[in-house]
Amino acid sequence: MHISVSALLGFLLGVFLFISAIILNTNNLLMFFSLSSFLMVVGGTLASAMISYEGRNVLLAIKEIGYALVASKVNPVTFYKDVGTLIDWSQIARQEGVIKLEQAISIPSGELNFLKQSYTYLVNGYSGNKLKSLMLHQQQYIYERNMVQAKVLLTMASAAPAFGMVGTLVGLIIMLNHMEGDYSQMGSGLAIALLTTLYGVLLAQIVLKPAARKVEQKQDLEFYRNQILIEGLTLLSEGASPFVIEDAMNAYIEPKYQFSRTKR
Amino acid sequence: MHISVSALLGFLLGVFLFISAIILNTNNLLMFFSLSSFLMVVGGTLASAMISYEGRNVLLAIKEIGYALVASKVNPVTFYKDVGTLIDWSQIARQEGVIKLEQAISIPSGELNFLKQSYTYLVNGYSGNKLKSLMLHQQQYIYERNMVQAKVLLTMASAAPAFGMVGTLVGLIIMLNHMEGDYSQMGSGLAIALLTTLYGVLLAQIVLKPAARKVEQKQDLEFYRNQILIEGLTLLSEGASPFVIEDAMNAYIEPKYQFSRTKR
Amino acid sequence: MHISVSALLGFLLGVFLFISAIILNTNNLLMFFSLSSFLMVVGGTLASAMISYEGRNVLLAIKEIGYALVASKVNPVTFYKDVGTLIDWSQIARQEGVIKLEQAISIPSGELNFLKQSYTYLVNGYSGNKLKSLMLHQQQYIYERNMVQAKVLLTMASAAPAFGMVGTLVGLIIMLNHMEGDYSQMGSGLAIALLTTLYGVLLAQIVLKPAARKVEQKQDLEFYRNQILIEGLTLLSEGASPFVIEDAMNAYIEPKYQFSRTKR
Amino acid sequence: MHISVSALLGFLLGVFLFISAIILNTNNLLMFFSLSSFLMVVGGTLASAMISYEGRNVLLAIKEIGYALVASKVNPVTFYKDVGTLIDWSQIARQEGVIKLEQAISIPSGELNFLKQSYTYLVNGYSGNKLKSLMLHQQQYIYERNMVQAKVLLTMASAAPAFGMVGTLVGLIIMLNHMEGDYSQMGSGLAIALLTTLYGVLLAQIVLKPAARKVEQKQDLEFYRNQILIEGLTLLSEGASPFVIEDAMNAYIEPKYQFSRTKR
Amino acid sequence: MHISVSALLGFLLGVFLFISAIILNTNNLLMFFSLSSFLMVVGGTLASAMISYEGRNVLLAIKEIGYALVASKVNPVTFYKDVGTLIDWSQIARQEGVIKLEQAISIPSGELNFLKQSYTYLVNGYSGNKLKSLMLHQQQYIYERNMVQAKVLLTMASAAPAFGMVGTLVGLIIMLNHMEGDYSQMGSGLAIALLTTLYGVLLAQIVLKPAARKVEQKQDLEFYRNQILIEGLTLLSEGASPFVIEDAMNAYIEPKYQFSRTKR
Repeated sequence: MHISVSALLGFLLGVFLFISAIILNTNNLLMFFSLSSFLMVVGGTLASAMISYEGRNVLLAIKEIGYALVASKVNPVTFYKDVGTLIDWSQIARQEGVIKLEQAISIPSGELNFLKQSYTYLVNGYSGNKLKSLMLHQQQYIYERNMVQAKVLLTMASAAPAFGMVGTLVGLIIMLNHMEGDYSQMGSGLAIALLTTLYGVLLAQIVLKPAARKVEQKQDLEFYRNQILIEGLTLLSEGASPFVIEDAMNAYIEPKYQFSRTKR
Repeated sequence: MHISVSALLGFLLGVFLFISAIILNTNNLLMFFSLSSFLMVVGGTLASAMISYEGRNVLLAIKEIGYALVASKVNPVTFYKDVGTLIDWSQIARQEGVIKLEQAISIPSGELNFLKQSYTYLVNGYSGNKLKSLMLHQQQYIYERNMVQAKVLLTMASAAPAFGMVGTLVGLIIMLNHMEGDYSQMGSGLAIALLTTLYGVLLAQIVLKPAARKVEQKQDLEFYRNQILIEGLTLLSEGASPFVIEDAMNAYIEPKYQFSRTKR
Repeated sequence: MHISVSALLGFLLGVFLFISAIILNTNNLLMFFSLSSFLMVVGGTLASAMISYEGRNVLLAIKEIGYALVASKVNPVTFYKDVGTLIDWSQIARQEGVIKLEQAISIPSGELNFLKQSYTYLVNGYSGNKLKSLMLHQQQYIYERNMVQAKVLLTMASAAPAFGMVGTLVGLIIMLNHMEGDYSQMGSGLAIALLTTLYGVLLAQIVLKPAARKVEQKQDLEFYRNQILIEGLTLLSEGASPFVIEDAMNAYIEPKYQFSRTKR
Repeated sequence: MHISVSALLGFLLGVFLFISAIILNTNNLLMFFSLSSFLMVVGGTLASAMISYEGRNVLLAIKEIGYALVASKVNPVTFYKDVGTLIDWSQIARQEGVIKLEQAISIPSGELNFLKQSYTYLVNGYSGNKLKSLMLHQQQYIYERNMVQAKVLLTMASAAPAFGMVGTLVGLIIMLNHMEGDYSQMGSGLAIALLTTLYGVLLAQIVLKPAARKVEQKQDLEFYRNQILIEGLTLLSEGASPFVIEDAMNAYIEPKYQFSRTKR
Repeated sequence: MHISVSALLGFLLGVFLFISAIILNTNNLLMFFSLSSFLMVVGGTLASAMISYEGRNVLLAIKEIGYALVASKVNPVTFYKDVGTLIDWSQIARQEGVIKLEQAISIPSGELNFLKQSYTYLVNGYSGNKLKSLMLHQQQYIYERNMVQAKVLLTMASAAPAFGMVGTLVGLIIMLNHMEGDYSQMGSGLAIALLTTLYGVLLAQIVLKPAARKVEQKQDLEFYRNQILIEGLTLLSEGASPFVIEDAMNAYIEPKYQFSRTKR
């Protein structure tokens, strides 16, 4: 687990440009902080998410916000290694039978659940279309289960500006009720009321939407990796040659990351 | 039927943060209550829903608002039990024939209609693809019938802010007509006019949208459970072994909730 | 054709709450009527619809607005009767042959075109997959043809608030040009300008959107009914037993409306 | 190619109601014309479309705006004729063989490309599923190619209000910079700034969106007609009887426009 | 790689109309430039994109903005040539066998990766459905990989106006805090605040959305070309005659660009 350099750089650059732009116009940054505005936007967004989804999923979604700056574990190099692994397995399976795989290979504990369980199906004797159908069901429901976090984050991203607007309405109503025909304080009252809208939009655009998109990408990549594994494992279970497995799995991979038995 | 602790907590936390944020700015909460604003938003939203949908569905949808704080009956533990149940059935069916199932088993009355009716098809002698097709039709139409409530709630959630805006327009028009060039009362008039917009947005974001999402999740989960049951019952009707049924149903379930005959 | 009580009730309740809310704030309801605002919103919306769609479809769509308060002809009781009808037919067909159906049965003239035409195919000797494919084509294109009215209404529902805004812009431009630095008349000018926005939003939310949703529901229900009929007629044409037809058709129907030969 | 009476009527009615509504409020229509506002909205919308799409497609899309008032060439009567044509062909094909079709029939030059090319495939000896697959590919890609114009128009329809808003912002910025604390000219400055928003919304609602919808409908209708032809030609190539071709093609057609060999 | 004349023309025309419209109203263009507004909109948009997507994809997306004015490499003439190429190949393959293709043909280095890799599969001995399935996987994943850039650009296009609004809120808050009941400077303060909204909308409408649409079109065209190649290569691998390959590939192509062996 290492930090994604580009995400961090983007984040810092954006914050830097943003703060500079404000400092070019005022030297009083304090006017942009307001506890009550913060409470209203964050409180409303959280409440809306917790009523909409189960608490467990909301916690997982909030955790994903932190992971938005972390690079994904699955990347083109992973695909390269996967093809190599399945080719090694296929050679053992062809020479000594699928049953021998269990003695020859141990999957590292940090590995994906999908590979582990598919491997179990394989050594339990499933093959061909039956194996493929079990793996496709797994792949689909892993994807759907993990996508709930992206949905929670998108729900929060659409709620945050709405609660920003709610806060501004509340601020306006208070200000308008208190001023009684005296317009001299309208300026600062309006400024405070607008802060919640600012908070809501920033929370959605800088934090919640990017985190949701990161989750979507991670899940798409994992779905895609599992697709390549399904292709390879199905062929392996049918006793296909390493060349055929290599060609079938490479069809999903960018030319420069494709596995080549000769170059190995 | 027990309360969903996280939903209640979320609701209370949100309301608490929200009220605190208001109290930080004013000690006159009364200005946020207005009968005419309430009547306009709720009346308009209700009228729009009742013209759009049949009265029966609108009532069911309103009932679902109350259930938003109730935990779902279907959860990963249910899946665990379902696999166990079907494995027990499959052993009876293999030893004594599907017909004997009827004498050996009684489905508790609180159970899902889907399981009951599928069971009836099974003991009536349907098997394999014919049984699967009957169950798939049932699953799909149960889902579609129950999703109407989510649609009603989403319709209301999009109508509420629109009627909030209608109320604000009505308030503005009254205020502008009455003031005749005298701007001193504009403040409080505007404050009252903005209240309906506030009501409309809050009703949509805190009540209607979360309730709609809860209905969607409950129906997705039930659809998903029925999918697992269809997989198991089809294999059972074809006389598959308990091991095969276990593997096929487990493919849909998270690793930590998977059924394991050996651990039982 | 009888009035849908709940739709009428909803409509009256909504109007009542709405008018009461206005009367609580002013006793001069006249300020909410303006011929020019009405002409602008209705004229623009109509023009936009008539350029977008064929005149024939726009007229049918406007007619559907009136039907929004009428209860649908197809309901769960219809499904119950349909199953009974097909079971009767299947008994005649099995005892005397499909050809005899023509002499034994006459379809009432008020019936759905779909049933009539499918019946003609049946007695003309089509059966099994050929019959099913003809009926599926019919079902799909009846649905698509009738859904055009819902599309027209939705187009109008999205045009109405836009023309409301156009009217407000026109009103503002006239007012701003006439006032020449004299702000005393701004209030009433603004009030009149806002009326068109109010009209546009109300027209969309109370009339056009609900009517569009009613059309969608009616067509969904008819599509659904035809689905049940297709299932039954296909089995009938293949000489299936009444029990099989009953089970297959019941799979689409809510438990409490399911047909039961024994209870009949 | 004749004018669609209802579209023209709708257009004139809409314009008439609209102009009357304005004249009820002011006798100075000149205030609604501004060259710079017009240049900004049309210029921006055009530029956006020409960068987004190839010049050829933008020109075709603009041409389609003119055709919005022209009635479609394909209508229910066309379907009626198509069934008759294919039945005539099928009789020749059955009696003298498909090859003789070429001598007996000449397709008028004004006809659809789809029919011409499908006919060529037929006389070249393709039949059954091979013929159907060639025709389905053609049908799909004719549809996709022609739908690009609808996409261009929808892109322009979403750009026009955005450039209207851009123009208003530009107008506001100029006005606010020039007034230097003197509010007496704010009225007319604001009026001019709002004109571009008015132009943008009207351009989108009266011209671009209706034209896009007309293109969509024309293409849907052509796709639908080709579907009926595919059904008929496939059966013809398999040597089906005229009765079977009639029934299969009629399944797509409204009862009152259905072809009937006996009534002919 | 040559410039797309229509795109450049559209761009220049749009800019020209736009600038003229501004010059008609003011001779002080300087008021439309503000460093801090520019930093805020561009900084926010970039930061949001870099947190949402991997740095590599954001760079590729920004590069695509430059290519928006470049004509696509794939066009109807390319399709014409592709059919000719495959017909030549099919003649060699039929006369001398697929293996001889490798000696007789060399694919130019500037060619598409898809054609190269499919060719490799072909000479490696894959044919019929196996070849087709490998090529379909490739086609789909090339498309999905390249569409990420369009997604990045659309994300930025939706973020830009949001950050424009953020900038305006920041400007308003600063202005309202500084004025303390003195409204004389409100005009210019408001003008500066509105600049960021203007920048945000222009960035989205003139730069980001058109670039995203160009990427989509280029990828759709490449997908479409690969579809035609898959059709031809599959038939070639099955030993089909040049006439059959020509007919099958032409079914996807507009009549006037269709290949004709006789006209060659």
